Amino acid sequence: MLSEKVLSMTKQKSVIREIFEYGMARANMIGAENVYDFSIGNPSVPAPESVDRAIYDIMQEQNPVERHGYAPNAGIPEVRKTIATSLNKRFGMDYTEANIFMTNGAAASLGILFQLMKNDPEDKIITFAPFFPEYSAYAISADIQLEVISANIPSFQINFEELEAVLDEHTKAVLINSPNNPSGVVYSKETIQKLAALLEEKQKEFGHPIYIISDEPYREIVYDGFEVSYVPRFYDNTFVCYSYSKSLSLPGERIGYIAFTNKIADADIMLGAFVQSARLLSYVCVPSMFQKVVARCVADTADLSVYAKNRERLYSALTAMGYECAEPGGAFYLFMKALGDDAGTFCETAKKYDLLLVPSDSFGCPGYVRISYCVDPERIEGALPLFKKLIDEYKGEK
Amino acid sequence: MLSEKVLSMTKQKSVIREIFEYGMARANMIGAENVYDFSIGNPSVPAPESVDRAIYDIMQEQNPVERHGYAPNAGIPEVRKTIATSLNKRFGMDYTEANIFMTNGAAASLGILFQLMKNDPEDKIITFAPFFPEYSAYAISADIQLEVISANIPSFQINFEELEAVLDEHTKAVLINSPNNPSGVVYSKETIQKLAALLEEKQKEFGHPIYIISDEPYREIVYDGFEVSYVPRFYDNTFVCYSYSKSLSLPGERIGYIAFTNKIADADIMLGAFVQSARLLSYVCVPSMFQKVVARCVADTADLSVYAKNRERLYSALTAMGYECAEPGGAFYLFMKALGDDAGTFCETAKKYDLLLVPSDSFGCPGYVRISYCVDPERIEGALPLFKKLIDEYKGEK
Repeated sequence: MLSEKVLSMTKQKSVIREIFEYGMARANMIGAENVYDFSIGNPSVPAPESVDRAIYDIMQEQNPVERHGYAPNAGIPEVRKTIATSLNKRFGMDYTEANIFMTNGAAASLGILFQLMKNDPEDKIITFAPFFPEYSAYAISADIQLEVISANIPSFQINFEELEAVLDEHTKAVLINSPNNPSGVVYSKETIQKLAALLEEKQKEFGHPIYIISDEPYREIVYDGFEVSYVPRFYDNTFVCYSYSKSLSLPGERIGYIAFTNKIADADIMLGAFVQSARLLSYVCVPSMFQKVVARCVADTADLSVYAKNRERLYSALTAMGYECAEPGGAFYLFMKALGDDAGTFCETAKKYDLLLVPSDSFGCPGYVRISYCVDPERIEGALPLFKKLIDEYKGEK
Repeated sequence: MLSEKVLSMTKQKSVIREIFEYGMARANMIGAENVYDFSIGNPSVPAPESVDRAIYDIMQEQNPVERHGYAPNAGIPEVRKTIATSLNKRFGMDYTEANIFMTNGAAASLGILFQLMKNDPEDKIITFAPFFPEYSAYAISADIQLEVISANIPSFQINFEELEAVLDEHTKAVLINSPNNPSGVVYSKETIQKLAALLEEKQKEFGHPIYIISDEPYREIVYDGFEVSYVPRFYDNTFVCYSYSKSLSLPGERIGYIAFTNKIADADIMLGAFVQSARLLSYVCVPSMFQKVVARCVADTADLSVYAKNRERLYSALTAMGYECAEPGGAFYLFMKALGDDAGTFCETAKKYDLLLVPSDSFGCPGYVRISYCVDPERIEGALPLFKKLIDEYKGEK
C-alpha cells in the first residue's frame, strides 16, 4: 500500500548508525569514558565565537519579521553577494549573487543536482570508491544510475583507466569529493587537471556537457602539505557544493550553497532550474536567520586545529604499530586497512576492545575501516593502547 | 540535456510571484504607500517575545556543539515529547514522541507524505478546490495523480456528491486544508464527521486504508464563531501536518511536524517510513536550534489579533459595498467573487487602482480573487475607497 521505493530504503540499514547506537548502549553499561567511538562524522569543535556574535547582533539589529521571514527561493541576495565576493577574493573568481544558490546543506545540493541531471533512463552519474553512502540514496531518489569507479589503492587518486572506459554518451556528471569521506584523501592538482582534460575531450566526443559535481563539505579541513584545488579554475562545467556544517561547525542548521560560473553550459537557466528542482524536493527556502549568520562569518572557521592534532597523532601512532592507512590530506577520517580477511569481522574484533570503527563495505571499498577522529584528543590517547592490543591479537593469530 | 521534469516547472509561472514582483516595481515608481499589495501570504506580525527569549536562553544554556549539532532524522526527542504533551492537553490525545515527526515545515510534510503514498501508476490523492497551487508540484514530484473536486459554492464546504463519485480503489489519501488557503473557509464539524463516515465506508469497500492528510498551517488563525476540528478525533487514519510559520510567525525558519496516532494503519512502521521518505528528498535534519525554540514556545502564538481586526473590517466593508465573499472563518485570506466574466481581467482592472489581487484560476476555482490581508490595518483603510471605485466602475459599465 505504501511506497515500495520508500519502504525498501528502510531495509538498507545504516551501518554507521547501528554502530553509533551500539556505542550509546555500551556507554550506558560500562561508562562513556570506556567506549572509544570513532563511528560518527559529527564535528566535535564548537562554532567560532563570531557565530554567537552574529546571532546576538542579528537579534539586536533586525526585527523579528525581517529576521524570520520567508527568504527568496534562491537565498537572500545580500548573503549570496557576500559569499560571491568572498570566493572571488579567495580563488580569483568573478562570481556575483547570480552564481550562488543557497541550499539546506550538501545533501540538498546533491539532491537538487541529481534530479536536474536526470532526463533519460540510461542517464548516469559517475563517482569514485570509497564514497559517502548517501550518494546512493540521492541516485535512487532521482532515479538516475550511479556508476562507481573502483578505488585506486593505495593512492586513492582517480583510477583514470577505469573512468575512461565507462565514460559514455549517457554520462551527465562526474561526482568528486575531495577531501574525501571516508578516506581523508585530497585529490592532487595533477588529478584535477587530468580529470578536466579527459572530460573536455569526452564532451567534444559526445557533443554534450559532462558536469563535475564537486562535493566540498571538508574544503576547510586540509593539512600541511596538501592543497584543495578550486575545481572551476580547471573546468568550466563545474558545480561547487559547499556546506557550513564542518567549516563553521553548524551541521544541524543546514546551510550550504551551489556555485557555478557564467561559463557553465546552460548558465542562463541554471539558477531558475535550481529553484524548480528544490521546489520538487519541497524546499521553500533555506533557514533565514542562519543564512544571515553564515554571511557574517564568511571568512571564519571553527578552530579546526584539533583535527590536525588528532590526525597527526593517530596516523603516526597507528602506522608505527604496523597498520596501513591512506595518507589523510584533509577531513577528519582515517581510512585504515582492516586486519584479516574481512572488515566486518575486524570491526567485531575491535569491539571487544571497545573500539568502534566503521567497516568500509558500505563505502564501496571493502577491506578497510573508517576512523572518524572528530573527537577530543584525550580519546585518541585512550584508544591507542587498545589499537596496539588489537594488532597484537591479529599478529598472534597469524 | 537537463531534466525535462524540472525545466517544465520553470514554465509554470507563479502568478502570485509575478504580481508580487509587479508590486515591488510599481512601489519603486509611485511609492510603496500608494500600492495596495494583497498578493502574498507572508505573516505581517512579529514572532512573540517568547521566541526572542527562547533564543537568548538557548544561547546561554547550551554550548555551540549541543545547540547546532546534527539532530536525529525524526527530530529532537525532547522537542517531539513537548509537542506531544501539548497536543494531548489541547485535544485529549495520547501522543508520545513516537507519534511526532519533525519536518522542515508544511511543504516538507506534504512532500514526504505524497512520496510515501505513491506506489502504483494509478495511485491518486484527492483534494478540493480552491487549493494551494504547490500541491500540484508535490504531486508532480512524487509522480502521483492529484484529483481535484470542484468548489462547493458558496459554502466552500466539501462537495460530497462529487467526492463519492471519484473515490475509488486507487485513492490513497484525501488532502484537506482548513482553515483554507485561498478561501479562508473553515470546515464545520459536520463536514469532518461526514468525510470520516464516508471514508470509513470506502475503506471497507476497497479493503485498504484511505488516509486523510490534514494540512493545518492556519490552525491557530481562527475567528469568533468558528472552530477547527481536530481531525484525528474523528478519523484514525489521519496525518496532521502542522507548521510554526504562521502561528509563531517563523516562516523562514522552516519548522513543522507530522503527527499520527497509534491507531493509524501501519502505525508501527510509519516513523521509519518518514525517515526514509525525508532522506529521499535529501533532508538530513530539521534545523536544530529552531526545533528547540519552538519547543519552548509550544503554547504561544504571535499576536494574531491584527488578522481578526483586518478580517472584520475588510469583510464587512466589502460586502457592504456589494462584493460577494466566502465567509472567512480563519487564515488571513478573503476569497471574493470577481466582477465581470474573468478573474484575470478583473485583477488587471484592479491594478489601475493599484490594488493587487490574485486571480483564483491557479487555485482551481475560476471567477474569484484572493485578498491576503496579512498587512498593516492602515493598508486596509487606504484600500477601501479604491475597492469602492473599482465596483463603481463595474456598475457603471453594466
